[in-house]
Amino acid sequence: MPLIALLTDYGYKDPYVGILKGVIKRINPAAEIVDLTHGVERQNIREGALILKSSAKYFPPGTIFVAVVDPGVGSQRRSILVKTRNYILVGPDNGLLSLLAIEDGIEEVYDIGESRYRLERVSGTFHGRDIFAPVAAYASLGVPLSELGERVDSNSIQVIEIPKPSVHGESVRARVIYVDVYGNVLTNVEPWLLDSLGWRMGDTLLVEAGSARRECTLTRSFSLVKVGELACYISSFDYLELGVNMGDASRELGVRLDDELVIRKAG
Amino acid sequence: MPLIALLTDYGYKDPYVGILKGVIKRINPAAEIVDLTHGVERQNIREGALILKSSAKYFPPGTIFVAVVDPGVGSQRRSILVKTRNYILVGPDNGLLSLLAIEDGIEEVYDIGESRYRLERVSGTFHGRDIFAPVAAYASLGVPLSELGERVDSNSIQVIEIPKPSVHGESVRARVIYVDVYGNVLTNVEPWLLDSLGWRMGDTLLVEAGSARRECTLTRSFSLVKVGELACYISSFDYLELGVNMGDASRELGVRLDDELVIRKAG
Amino acid sequence: MPLIALLTDYGYKDPYVGILKGVIKRINPAAEIVDLTHGVERQNIREGALILKSSAKYFPPGTIFVAVVDPGVGSQRRSILVKTRNYILVGPDNGLLSLLAIEDGIEEVYDIGESRYRLERVSGTFHGRDIFAPVAAYASLGVPLSELGERVDSNSIQVIEIPKPSVHGESVRARVIYVDVYGNVLTNVEPWLLDSLGWRMGDTLLVEAGSARRECTLTRSFSLVKVGELACYISSFDYLELGVNMGDASRELGVRLDDELVIRKAG
Repeated sequence: MPLIALLTDYGYKDPYVGILKGVIKRINPAAEIVDLTHGVERQNIREGALILKSSAKYFPPGTIFVAVVDPGVGSQRRSILVKTRNYILVGPDNGLLSLLAIEDGIEEVYDIGESRYRLERVSGTFHGRDIFAPVAAYASLGVPLSELGERVDSNSIQVIEIPKPSVHGESVRARVIYVDVYGNVLTNVEPWLLDSLGWRMGDTLLVEAGSARRECTLTRSFSLVKVGELACYISSFDYLELGVNMGDASRELGVRLDDELVIRKAG
Repeated sequence: MPLIALLTDYGYKDPYVGILKGVIKRINPAAEIVDLTHGVERQNIREGALILKSSAKYFPPGTIFVAVVDPGVGSQRRSILVKTRNYILVGPDNGLLSLLAIEDGIEEVYDIGESRYRLERVSGTFHGRDIFAPVAAYASLGVPLSELGERVDSNSIQVIEIPKPSVHGESVRARVIYVDVYGNVLTNVEPWLLDSLGWRMGDTLLVEAGSARRECTLTRSFSLVKVGELACYISSFDYLELGVNMGDASRELGVRLDDELVIRKAG
Repeated sequence: MPLIALLTDYGYKDPYVGILKGVIKRINPAAEIVDLTHGVERQNIREGALILKSSAKYFPPGTIFVAVVDPGVGSQRRSILVKTRNYILVGPDNGLLSLLAIEDGIEEVYDIGESRYRLERVSGTFHGRDIFAPVAAYASLGVPLSELGERVDSNSIQVIEIPKPSVHGESVRARVIYVDVYGNVLTNVEPWLLDSLGWRMGDTLLVEAGSARRECTLTRSFSLVKVGELACYISSFDYLELGVNMGDASRELGVRLDDELVIRKAG
């Protein structure tokens, strides 16, 4: 029985996540449900897409991901199910599923907006409950995907992009793509770029963010620099991250999601 | 094996919810537990009751709901188990269970305060752990309800009420009964009242809240009005709700839980 | 199949908890996972240790606790598995596991930092995912502990301590060791100390915190004093706690974690 993993921006106050689970268990009492997170920033599709892409590879093959960050619910945006090489993704067609779908390889896409496996009464505001959860639950029971929706062009899904850093001589103009609860600052700089610039473990980097200028050591973990110092390392998301040992890099640098950073080798 | 669903105001910082689950799994290792929510506003019995009533119908018949919003724990308030037509409800007798119990139909009520299935040592402050969770766990194992507590009059439970809106000529004096994480403002206006006033999809309504006056379109979803505009629609809770497309209606209108709103047709 | 219980300071925004679960289910699809809490104050090892110790006894014997509050991840601190009389504990060797381990009785300790059951690629920042979760998952499958790591001296684990209160004549100098979501203030005063001072139910105590001085009644529950009044009672953590009926004792007294309190009998 495939696992069902949930990612939403519903937060933890309202009963919305609990209701998704009730709907799933009503359809498939044996379903196993895991929360990936419900703390995606409200209506931040790109953040949800990034988390989904970065996390999925740690889940069992066959996992069905139900992802809902859906400011356009009730409008013309499609509801889709995407079969990728290893997973099944269910959610709105607004880019949320696209980073993972493309990375894992899209095999088939279905429009499930009119699925006969929806709940009977579909609201204008809660497609997680009315469409995505029930379709995922029936998928977990083994209903063929072709019965769950109408097959559409695999290239027709909305795609969202993580902005790319740009290189200017010796310096990289990067962007903050995520800030976690510890205040660690995730950039859009991928490991290969460090290699191509010839930056190595132990190098000192100079980070500029607005009027803040800080040095940091390129290292394997924030815990390898002194307490209170800034470290640069390849994070568990597989991007360059800035963290302060026992501190909060986001506050220290005064940066938030989407802010720009300029990084170069010091000296 | 029936599902056990939990609703509390314990929040997510403390280990209280985890402890409930430990107690349940200790008694019934095969129990399946789902969180409805633990984000009910602290000690807000009416909010908990509303969420419970609005959510239960999405859960499988037979589900055992353990609900704890319990400012009177350790006082004279009773601990009860209510068998309704479709569910079993376990919690304090302070009104929390009453909206769902009445809607679903009360069949039997048991006083479980002295249940022999309680934990051996009952604290004065944590009946969720000491009484409600163990009684629910034994109920999930199939122990007859008559063994779990002492049968009492089905009409003896404490009842809480959602305030009713009042109609004054063409305008409705309503109240805010819930604000969700998106800032959507749930009112106590039920769909039948809109019908009886002759308000229809597409109509423009005028909403007054304190000194704020806003127009909104009666529609099927907040996503069908322009970004930043206010929409009125029947929410997934089945009451009239006010939401701003890509925005926060609660902030926009300056309203909170229990505030009054006056709504009428514009023009 | 033993239950796996998770305690971390990961919070609920990031996908870190979800990823732990993915890793576990990938290795052991039948694993049952329960969240104890992920709301431990960031990097507060002592708070995590206290919660773990206070909560574990409500879980089934054999439960595998994965605990991660780990500011030293990636440094020289060891990764360990501790077999206690009733449980298996997995986490960093920084004191987090020590209160529970000592209370329950340490039987065997293993260094799992180089376990061959780790994920293939071990990051410098996310040992929960790379070491603790996989080792716990394999333990839940019944892999002998001696295969999971290298046996080390049982007395070699890092120990953390809850500060002890001191008695000065008739008064107790205590400390705040936890504040829960209701604002209830947990002190480090154990029930035996009240007995030894001859304080009894119904006595009035005088509590000094900074410049605040308040009387409270020693009772069985905060709900047994009048609304808005301060009560002292033995909490569900088994320490003396201060709570306000329908209120917030932490705000009322102006105290936070680690603050000092002086308590004596009034009159």
